[in-house]
Amino acid sequence: MTKIVYISIGNEILIGKTVNTNEAFIGSQLADIGMPLEKTITIKDERETILNLLKSCWEKYDIIIVTGGLGPTHDDVTKSAICKFFKKELVFKNSVWNDIKKLYNEENQTIPEIVKTQAEIPEGFIALANKRGTAPGLYYSRNNKKIFVLPGVPAEMKHLFIENIIPMIKKQYHTTPLFQKTIRTIGIPESLLYTKTEEIKESEHTKIAFLPKPGMVDIRVYGFMEKEVNMFINHLQNKIPEGNIYGFDDENIVSIFHKKMLDSRKTISAAESCTGGLIQNLITDNAGSSEYFLGGIVCYSNDAKMRLLKVQRSTIHKFGAVSRETVKEMVVGVQNLMKSDYAIAVSGIAGPGGGLKEKPVGLVYIGVIGKSGLDITKNNFSGNRLAVKKKTAFTALNQLSKTL
Amino acid sequence: MTKIVYISIGNEILIGKTVNTNEAFIGSQLADIGMPLEKTITIKDERETILNLLKSCWEKYDIIIVTGGLGPTHDDVTKSAICKFFKKELVFKNSVWNDIKKLYNEENQTIPEIVKTQAEIPEGFIALANKRGTAPGLYYSRNNKKIFVLPGVPAEMKHLFIENIIPMIKKQYHTTPLFQKTIRTIGIPESLLYTKTEEIKESEHTKIAFLPKPGMVDIRVYGFMEKEVNMFINHLQNKIPEGNIYGFDDENIVSIFHKKMLDSRKTISAAESCTGGLIQNLITDNAGSSEYFLGGIVCYSNDAKMRLLKVQRSTIHKFGAVSRETVKEMVVGVQNLMKSDYAIAVSGIAGPGGGLKEKPVGLVYIGVIGKSGLDITKNNFSGNRLAVKKKTAFTALNQLSKTL
Repeated sequence: MTKIVYISIGNEILIGKTVNTNEAFIGSQLADIGMPLEKTITIKDERETILNLLKSCWEKYDIIIVTGGLGPTHDDVTKSAICKFFKKELVFKNSVWNDIKKLYNEENQTIPEIVKTQAEIPEGFIALANKRGTAPGLYYSRNNKKIFVLPGVPAEMKHLFIENIIPMIKKQYHTTPLFQKTIRTIGIPESLLYTKTEEIKESEHTKIAFLPKPGMVDIRVYGFMEKEVNMFINHLQNKIPEGNIYGFDDENIVSIFHKKMLDSRKTISAAESCTGGLIQNLITDNAGSSEYFLGGIVCYSNDAKMRLLKVQRSTIHKFGAVSRETVKEMVVGVQNLMKSDYAIAVSGIAGPGGGLKEKPVGLVYIGVIGKSGLDITKNNFSGNRLAVKKKTAFTALNQLSKTL
Repeated sequence: MTKIVYISIGNEILIGKTVNTNEAFIGSQLADIGMPLEKTITIKDERETILNLLKSCWEKYDIIIVTGGLGPTHDDVTKSAICKFFKKELVFKNSVWNDIKKLYNEENQTIPEIVKTQAEIPEGFIALANKRGTAPGLYYSRNNKKIFVLPGVPAEMKHLFIENIIPMIKKQYHTTPLFQKTIRTIGIPESLLYTKTEEIKESEHTKIAFLPKPGMVDIRVYGFMEKEVNMFINHLQNKIPEGNIYGFDDENIVSIFHKKMLDSRKTISAAESCTGGLIQNLITDNAGSSEYFLGGIVCYSNDAKMRLLKVQRSTIHKFGAVSRETVKEMVVGVQNLMKSDYAIAVSGIAGPGGGLKEKPVGLVYIGVIGKSGLDITKNNFSGNRLAVKKKTAFTALNQLSKTL
């Protein structure tokens, strides 16, 4: 069994200023190829401390993964510790320097003198091109042992890990892929899901995990036997009400919506009250959304609802801004205003203030005009302001997706 | 110097299913009393592995803090490893059993048989009452060394840590509170910040850390001498261009914007092209934003810019949708449309497609109408689509905040 240790270097983690999310990322990436981490260690960014840890880990482990301390400033001492331990000198790499220059050119910025040191790497190490920052990843192998050194900034670490390290490990070790399948549900609480699927018990080889998120629950089944994983997924699927399953595996509500809208060759617009722009923000996170998304309105004030969306003053007066009637006029209004084929509108009480006994915080009306015409739902979402915003946005996108 | 190590026990951390937030919590609690963690380690919940680690840590450290593996099920082996290492037997504690019974009574539930083992603790250990779960905290001291063992569930761990461990450490060690101050900057790269402040060197007592985030960098100064920390902050502040400092300590761009807008008693609206709703979403994440935020437009299409915001067709034709001229008409347009005092408009190329040589991905024009009138900036942001959206949104909110 290949033994892998992950070392993160950074006072910020030890003093609790940074939550070490890199650990979970690296851990799950390695577990997915059947090479789980044996141990993780976090230490201070001090040269001697790093050096001592390298000494003990280089003996005990087959692969060492290090993150952090690769910046150009004084508190970045990882490279120097690596050099000392492996008895290497730093050498200037033109290829790395060219990558750095390219990065600065893209931003039209001049390169500070100090950044030049980022192009220096320990002799005999291989530089892994960092497309998101100035510190290249470093790789070295000797006597069947390997060390990877990566920057600690998550975005930089992740792309280096996925594009370089995982392929290298897969190529050089006999990895056993872990089979995983995930059923993704919305609108059904974890405890109810658990009760509905209770009779399906884990086996020796196949495990089931319930992963709750705001308003949604993923059920993940994993193991080394593909057939058994698939069998469990089928059993589970039969126990869960169909309307609550919105997708599988890496599909998420926004990606499903995006794909269906692209396929539909129709256009859409949105009018948001309580979500304040979140729905449109989620839509436009997808490259290519301009193909179908025309735009929309954030109508926080009643005035905006009336003037822009032509919601009748009498409707708001009689039923309130948070009502089936108002949302109906909003969704028709934004469809007309933006001249779109389809439309989404939401109005609700995100809280913490503004709740009443008959209209409590979390009450949200969602109106969509999709392939099957107008559909308005009344929802009661739990949680704080941000949770209500999120649940509303995902439920609205799912409500429209289901019609496509 | 008292040496403290934190050991978390749990496969789910190693395989990346759980982010270890306990680490940051424990780290910051200890740093705040001047007893920072020396090292943190995560290992599997296997008895032999735990035992071996205890052996090496009990020698090297003054205090060991362990979390996890205290549940009543088969994969909870921490207590057994502890017993083996310290050569202790488990003894049934009536006081712990009473706490557990109380917990179940409060919830009107019958106690499963298996839970009774939770009242067994290693002989000579002190049980720390857990008000949130069945596993008591454990404490043991010998030869001036201490070990604390806590459940891994964050809510249980936190209350035990705050109510028992911190007071015990404070009482028995000479703790010194750590002083920290943070300068928060935007729009200046880490390397340039470093160059500008290079002559300010850390002292023996006061440390400086650079913490980069997308488009922003925090500079944190910390140490045990409040005066020196403040002096360093002053020196640093003098070296950094004023326009790049947006706040201090826990302030962030959105909270500063929110506070200044509430204080101003003015209203605002927004017109977003490349950010697609993100700016308005950030504004409306704050409870109370409806006091000043009237709403706005997401105008992805040129048609929406022209029809809703009255941007001239000739302006878009002559200068393009991403131009100083178009953004000027957008910000004036949304101010007029929404009848707001202030306004924000952005137009840019978020990518990955749509870039041209003279208008590359990341080019963004930001227009604000604030207290000092119209101000339009041209920006070149690096990074992928989501990074460009984020940098644009934060820069725009900061650009308006600065005028208030």
